Parts: sequence; structure tokens; C-alpha cells
Amino acid sequence: MALIVQKYGGTSVGTIDRIRNVARRVARTKNEGNQVVVVLSAMSGETDRLIELTHQAVDFPEGREYDVVVSTGELISIGLLCLILKEMGYRAMSLTGFQVPIVTDSVFGSARIKRVGTERIMEGLKKDFIVVVAGFQGVDEDGNITTLGRGGSDTTAVALAASLRADLCEIYTDVEGVYTTDPGICPDARKLKKISYDEMLEMASLGAKVLQTRSVEFSKKYNVPVLVRSSFTDAEGTFVCKEDRDMEKAVVSGITYNKDEAKISVVRVPDRPGIAAKLFRPLTAEGINVDMIVQNISHDGYTDLTFTVSKRDYKKALGLVKEVSKEIEAKEVVGDQNIAKVSIVGAGMRSHAGVASRMFETLAREGINIQMISTSEIKVSCVVDEKYTELAVRVLHEAFELGKEDVEEE
Amino acid sequence: MALIVQKYGGTSVGTIDRIRNVARRVARTKNEGNQVVVVLSAMSGETDRLIELTHQAVDFPEGREYDVVVSTGELISIGLLCLILKEMGYRAMSLTGFQVPIVTDSVFGSARIKRVGTERIMEGLKKDFIVVVAGFQGVDEDGNITTLGRGGSDTTAVALAASLRADLCEIYTDVEGVYTTDPGICPDARKLKKISYDEMLEMASLGAKVLQTRSVEFSKKYNVPVLVRSSFTDAEGTFVCKEDRDMEKAVVSGITYNKDEAKISVVRVPDRPGIAAKLFRPLTAEGINVDMIVQNISHDGYTDLTFTVSKRDYKKALGLVKEVSKEIEAKEVVGDQNIAKVSIVGAGMRSHAGVASRMFETLAREGINIQMISTSEIKVSCVVDEKYTELAVRVLHEAFELGKEDVEEE
Repeated sequence: MALIVQKYGGTSVGTIDRIRNVARRVARTKNEGNQVVVVLSAMSGETDRLIELTHQAVDFPEGREYDVVVSTGELISIGLLCLILKEMGYRAMSLTGFQVPIVTDSVFGSARIKRVGTERIMEGLKKDFIVVVAGFQGVDEDGNITTLGRGGSDTTAVALAASLRADLCEIYTDVEGVYTTDPGICPDARKLKKISYDEMLEMASLGAKVLQTRSVEFSKKYNVPVLVRSSFTDAEGTFVCKEDRDMEKAVVSGITYNKDEAKISVVRVPDRPGIAAKLFRPLTAEGINVDMIVQNISHDGYTDLTFTVSKRDYKKALGLVKEVSKEIEAKEVVGDQNIAKVSIVGAGMRSHAGVASRMFETLAREGINIQMISTSEIKVSCVVDEKYTELAVRVLHEAFELGKEDVEEE
Repeated sequence: MALIVQKYGGTSVGTIDRIRNVARRVARTKNEGNQVVVVLSAMSGETDRLIELTHQAVDFPEGREYDVVVSTGELISIGLLCLILKEMGYRAMSLTGFQVPIVTDSVFGSARIKRVGTERIMEGLKKDFIVVVAGFQGVDEDGNITTLGRGGSDTTAVALAASLRADLCEIYTDVEGVYTTDPGICPDARKLKKISYDEMLEMASLGAKVLQTRSVEFSKKYNVPVLVRSSFTDAEGTFVCKEDRDMEKAVVSGITYNKDEAKISVVRVPDRPGIAAKLFRPLTAEGINVDMIVQNISHDGYTDLTFTVSKRDYKKALGLVKEVSKEIEAKEVVGDQNIAKVSIVGAGMRSHAGVASRMFETLAREGINIQMISTSEIKVSCVVDEKYTELAVRVLHEAFELGKEDVEEE
């Protein structure tokens, strides 16, 4: 008997019929003799509807009350699934973030999980219940409702799997697994059988929307085996796990892109210690995540500093930076929303030279100008003009021979 | 400085603009130097949408999980109102049934409030917050989410007012107060300035949909002064309070009707002790409320027993009663959904004779057959064929001279 956590995303529970389909999958897993904990997102469209309501209400919806509104969608889906499971003859019990409890910090809108109460769930499992937990939401130490940010249900599932020492965490979604790149852009994109936590982490944070970044961090930290698969087919899916030998054969595992970021450049800043700290402090205070940061060498005591934030935070960030820029005596602040980040990811880069050059050459050959570069051990990211996104992805996918079945033999 | 509880119903918060309107009313009360606790229903249509979802999911939605789904509507409205109040510059804090806590029994779907935690609200008020509480919902001793049944937000408001020892409980709705009868049926229906708890209790339980019965019981028990008024106008409203001298002048204060009930007759039951108990036990066990019960004198050791239940419970009740009827050897069970209950209510009946006769005569003159009669100290109810409802209401309203301004002089 295994303990399996299954997470179903918004499209998988998008209609009553689809929730019925989820119920059948859950029942099958239960019938096979497993203990099952289910984590659900809100029915697709529901959270958007709630967010829209808050925007109709006020200009800048945020904070405690925003979370109260947008966390309701998951309560509907968990209640409905339990009603259906019960009608099918199973014992089923829904639990809200409050009831589990999933204790988070108090950063409303993007709270982080601090700990998960397992007692109530374990008690339910012992009594043969299928336990259905609301994704995306938690409760802070003062009993306030919090939400984990977009895609937070993945994190809920992995955190539960870690806390419950589950044997497997299945993430059901509307795609069949993790692909070498977006099949919508590259028709010959190939589904990966396995991917390491680190690669998945880069893929997720770079824009492959299969798993939320934080959920992969969590699964890596607690070594939770994650299987990404489709709730609509019985296809095999992609296994996210520790790096193993097979994986090392591939130099590059995938190409990702992200159009959700915007670029802000602070031009001609006097190059003194503490400038960067001063610049980013107000952003941190407002909970704005800065992604890439590039600072060039200094000329005549002046330097340029460029960074990217999510488009959602762009206006706010630009305002904050403009204020600070006066204080630090920068010449000007320039923003650009028409950018995309295209990246190559692969654990094999560690042992293979020349991967970055091949990327730069491939883009140059197509006349695509690179605006920013950022690298890590297992990825290289380039910011380019947004209009080149699809082209860049396609030529890189081809250049690294990802579409071919024998890529692993390289 | 007074402590005022204000409750706004579904139509009062039916759109974002209407929630803004509520925010302005709340702000005005706050600006006048009062402490304000607000109780909200779900936006109109929202709870119906949720109920519809549960019916799409299963044939008989009920129990714990049903409550999880249908209690979400209020969370949306309290969050939105707080967002708007905060944007207007006020301190505002929403509290769910969980957070208050509003502790209820575990009768899902129609739970009763056992006690209300006042600590968190009082703390909020002390810190100058407007506290906005979700109506209709609570939490049982085991931490399960419960709902109070339709109109439960009124009860939430009165229970809060009682627990907080509020100076006034204002119930904002889409009508301007309590009328002598439904103005939709009788154009000359008159708004009452005052009505006693007892009269309101009869009016509410008999179908005047201004206040939920249980909320009036609560307000009577704890002597909470209630003002029923419109959220759309500044009209005076109706004050619900202890009986006073002015009121006694009116023999009949109002005419009510209720089309939501159905009649079940158990025919030719052997008249032995314990029969009624046997009959109603399974109904009670299923949480089905029985309203009128009429048992006639026995003939040859047999009697007929007729009672009414809400149309919602009709099918279930009929099934249960049919089962028991075999056991108690009744001849047959007959049901009828095409009935209406028409009632006259007035504290003055206590001291005036002949009120019931006048009612029966009035109905007889119109050829309306009376199927069942039930009386209390301050009301007389008659069950008639549903098709006569409006006619019965109009002729009774006229017979008791309720449309005339000088009715109090009678």
C-alpha cells in the first residue's frame, strides 16, 4: 500500500464532467489499494473571475482581503469532488488550508509554506477516507487566509507529499508531461521521460508552465518523486527526480521562453558601494521579485544596471526605481516591456564546453540581437526582442537536436 | 458612540456598484462616531449558482461537503467590501465564520449558532477597524464548515448584535421595511413603523421574507433592537422590538402567505399512543422540519393525521412517511403540493374575540375552501388551494382594514 498525493489543475476540474473524470482516476488509485490525498485547483476560469471582481472593486487589489476573495475557488472544487466521491460510495473529506492547516508566512498573494499539519489528514487516511485538500491556500500564524501565488497548488501538493512522506506526488495537468520545448511553437518537441530537479527548476522558473518553481524547489529539498502527467489520457508522463546517469548524456534537455517579464535599466549610476542595495531594497519591501540582474563594468566611475521583473510588477517597480534613481543620482531610468527571455537548460552543460557559444551563434545567424545574458551551471538565458521569441525557440531546438529521438546518443 | 451591527442582503451587494453603495453607508455610520460591524450575504445569484453546481455534480447534494461549496459566496463579498473600504481610507478587516468564530452545531445545511466568539471582533473595533463578517456560515466544534440555511445571514447579524451587546442591529434589504402584506399582491399594503418580536416571528415563519425566523427568535431572546430598512433609499424602515402600547391597538398587523409548503396526509391510522412519535421520528432524524400538524378526533379507533413540510423536503418526507405508514398500519398516505398557507398576525388578537371567525367568513364569502387550520395566540393560519393565494390575501387585507391609515384607531 502506497501513499499517493495527486494534484489536479484548473483545466482538469474545469467542468462538472471533468471533476467526475478526476473522481474516477482518484477512485482507481484508491481501488488499487493506495491511500490517496488529492489536491485541487479552482475550476479553470474561476480564479480569473475572482481576480476580475477585485479589479472592478478597486484599482490596486492586494493584501489580506484580496486573498480572502481569490482563495474561494478551491473550496468549490474540493467540495464538489467530495460530493461526487461520496455518491460513488467512497469516504471522502475535504480540507481547506485552514483545516489542514497549511501554515504560511503572511506575505499575502504569494505566501510561503512554513509547515503542514499532518494529523487531520493521517487520521482521515486511517479511517479509509480519501482526503481532498484545497490547493493554493494557507493560513498564517494569526489565522489570516493567505494564498501561495499562481500555480500554488503544485506547491501545496509537493509540500503535502513531503510532510506525509508520500511515495509519489502525481501532478495531473492538461499536457502529457515536460517537453523539450513548447509543442505549440515546435511541432517536433519531444516529451521527456525523466528530468532532474535542477533542470526542472530552471525550466519552471524560465517559463515552462508545467510546474510552479517553488513546488520543484520543495520536491528537490525533500526528495519528493514527482510524476507530471495528463488527466485526460493514460500516457506515461515525465518523472521529476534526482539526477541520474541517463540524464547526463543530454547536454541540453530543453528550450524555454518567458514573455512575462519586462526590463528596467538604470542608466549612468555613479558606481559606489551600496548602490545596488539601495536600488533593490524598496522592490524587496514591496515583494517584487527581480529576476535577471546585469551590471556592466564601470566607465568613468559610472555604470548601467539592468534587471527584469514580471510584467505584473513592472509599473510599480518602475515607479519605485525612478524615485530611488534621483537619490543615487542616476542619469535616467528606461523601461521596456517588449522583451522575451529564451533559455537553454541541461544538466549536461556542466561537462560540455561551448554550449553557450552555440546558442549565441545560432541566434546571430538569424539576426536576433541579444539584449541581456545570464547563466547558471545548467542554463543560459538570453533576453531578446519579444517578436523573435518563436523563431529563437525553433532554431535553438533544432541547433541542439532536441527533436530527434537519438538526441541522447550525442 | 454606539456599536451598530449592519447586515446587507444579497441584492444589496449584488454588483460591485452596489457593494460601493454599501461601503458608503457603512462609512457614513462610522463617520458619525459609531463602531460598525457589518454582516454580508453572498452577491445575489452567487449562492444559487453554487447550489446549481452541487446539483450538477450529484443527485442529492447535502452534508458537510455541500456546506463547503455553498459557504464560499460570502467570502467573496466580505473581501470585496473590505478592499473598497480600505481604498476609501478606512481600516477594515473581514472575518469568516471560522475566524470569528461563529460556533454552531453540526447540522449541515441548517446549523444553529451555539456561541459567538467576540474577542477578535472587539479587538478589531478597539483598533478602529470596521469589522466585516461573513453571514450564513459557521464552524462546528470539530472545525467543520457549516451553513445556517437560507436567510442565515440575518441570524448571523442578530447573534453578533446579541453577543457584542450592540445598541442596534440594522437589517438592510431590498424593501423599505415590514408591510401589512406583500405589496406585490396588495398595492395598498402599508409599511409598519413598529412590530413586536412575536408578531414578526409569526410573519417571518409564515412567509414574509424580510427576516429569517431564527433571527427574530434570537433578537427576541436577547432583546436586540432590530431595524429593517432599505439599502437603496433613506426611508425610515420598520423597528422590531418589544411589544408596547401603541401596538396593542392593532388587532391584526399583517397578512402573510407561504407557497413553499406541501401537505402530507396519513389516512386511517389506528389511534394508539406513540403513533405520532413513530411517524415524525424519521423526519426529525433527517432534519426535516414539520410545520402545521393537524390530527382530528378519532372515529372507530382510527384517525387522520395531516402535516406540512417545505416543498424542498416533500419528496423525501413522503418516502419516509410511506415506509412508516406500513409499520403503523395506516390505510394510505396522500400528498399535495398545490397548497398555500394564508395567515393573519396580530398581537391584538389576545384581547379581541372573533378575529378567527372574521377570517373564515371572509374566505367563505369568496368560495375559498379551508383545508387545514392552525392557530397560536397571535395568528391564525389557513391552508387553501394554491390558486386562491392572492385572492385570499387581498380580501383579508381589506377585511381587516390594513390598507387604511387609521387602522390603529380601530
